[in-house]
Amino acid sequence: MELWVTERQKDFSFSLKVKETLYRDTSPYQEILIVETYGYGRVLLLDNTIQTTEKDEFFYHEMLTHMPLCAHSGPERVLIIGGGDGGAVREVLKHETVQKIVHVEIDGKVVEASRKYLPLHNPDAKNKKIELHIADGIEYVKNVSEPFDVIIVDSTDPVGPAVNLFGFDFFSSVYGALKDDGIVMSQTGSPFLYGSFVKKVSHTLSKVFPLVRVCCGPMPTYPSGIWSYTLGSKKNDPAKPLRVLPTNLTHYYNADIHKAAFVLPNFLRDILSNSL
Amino acid sequence: MELWVTERQKDFSFSLKVKETLYRDTSPYQEILIVETYGYGRVLLLDNTIQTTEKDEFFYHEMLTHMPLCAHSGPERVLIIGGGDGGAVREVLKHETVQKIVHVEIDGKVVEASRKYLPLHNPDAKNKKIELHIADGIEYVKNVSEPFDVIIVDSTDPVGPAVNLFGFDFFSSVYGALKDDGIVMSQTGSPFLYGSFVKKVSHTLSKVFPLVRVCCGPMPTYPSGIWSYTLGSKKNDPAKPLRVLPTNLTHYYNADIHKAAFVLPNFLRDILSNSL
Repeated sequence: MELWVTERQKDFSFSLKVKETLYRDTSPYQEILIVETYGYGRVLLLDNTIQTTEKDEFFYHEMLTHMPLCAHSGPERVLIIGGGDGGAVREVLKHETVQKIVHVEIDGKVVEASRKYLPLHNPDAKNKKIELHIADGIEYVKNVSEPFDVIIVDSTDPVGPAVNLFGFDFFSSVYGALKDDGIVMSQTGSPFLYGSFVKKVSHTLSKVFPLVRVCCGPMPTYPSGIWSYTLGSKKNDPAKPLRVLPTNLTHYYNADIHKAAFVLPNFLRDILSNSL
Repeated sequence: MELWVTERQKDFSFSLKVKETLYRDTSPYQEILIVETYGYGRVLLLDNTIQTTEKDEFFYHEMLTHMPLCAHSGPERVLIIGGGDGGAVREVLKHETVQKIVHVEIDGKVVEASRKYLPLHNPDAKNKKIELHIADGIEYVKNVSEPFDVIIVDSTDPVGPAVNLFGFDFFSSVYGALKDDGIVMSQTGSPFLYGSFVKKVSHTLSKVFPLVRVCCGPMPTYPSGIWSYTLGSKKNDPAKPLRVLPTNLTHYYNADIHKAAFVLPNFLRDILSNSL
């Protein structure tokens, strides 16, 4: 007897062989499933879509966090929107300059289940620097009293409610919630499968931030295996790292990767340079 | 009714939705299948393993060819071992310096079926610069009378007979079949799933060539979506492009990508710097 979990896209699918189901529930927002797999460790799926696996999450979480944090001269206050699995928080905690991480996740059940069943994502969930809010990130950024150095948007796919996390109104609120040298980082999906979406987000972000940059990195268990990340910055060019993270703290990221990640394939250069 | 084709690895699988089967046969070497898919165009599988899809083959074939060819000051004679689908030949033909492409593929049926059913891989199969030999590449390189500038090893996975395409004896023959400034390029699989194999090949190659370099690039339909390529060179550093290819000729490769491809993730740097 074999148990497999399958993420099905329109024309292709990816399946992982499962040892056992650890958690299964439905929240007001989505179906949540955590399984133990043979090849990829523990895996979190939301609405049948792979969010994170223990084996390859480092590619994604390191890009999402160290790119904006190392491009900032001394990040102290960081806001993470989404990312209920905890991986982004874990990475941000590696920066000793950081004093406060405000973590805003809409689905409390994802945080609860991840802290229980994904311990590698949450090694230090009780750290006093973390301030958790179970709330809508879109509403939260509208009313920020003390601005942030870096805001990280660790969203699900841009379908349903998450669509608004890529819109002009949201990015305008994000701008207002950042200090004068603040940086925002957002995952923007597969540049190979959805290049026009990357273009659209970067176009929208350009209406709000003076500096907008797109970078890419591998992500084995996400569709197509290549992923894009889009940064908006008020002052410094996010492509230029201002600080270095000790290499023993990361599996993927290093200062050379930081710079190389902004070197884009011809097809993506073309998409981004075309008019909408 | 839906038809799907599935490549199954030990702990995971990848499936493509199929419109129709175009070709199916068994050669003395392998089972050959060419299907028309909904999302990835035409796809060639050998022994149930995806070799090439029309949608994403450019990542692989551009890395495999333009990296060694642009690192050479003026490649005229190129040997391609394997690559029966034709994609590597097509890319090499984009270099105007090239006068002769000797293409050695062991399985005549793969060449025949690909020329018929993969026209996008074989737009210029009748080009007079191409000299096709249906023969064993391992034997062929032992008896080369006129040496080559670049040798490209476009092999299948290192199981069965293809194992010998990564061994010391083969690389020694390759060395002998190259001119004094010759370069060899070999695909070396997923650095994420099989990092120790990359290390092993680069170690073996180092016993033969003074300069050995590993680079990586995306490859959506290959396991893990990230792929490694290993180069051996007699004289010039393959990481430094000596020539530029017009950017309108490629979808992925450009001179900046060439340099960035040698920037390795920490985990791969660690594997390669460890002793065997």
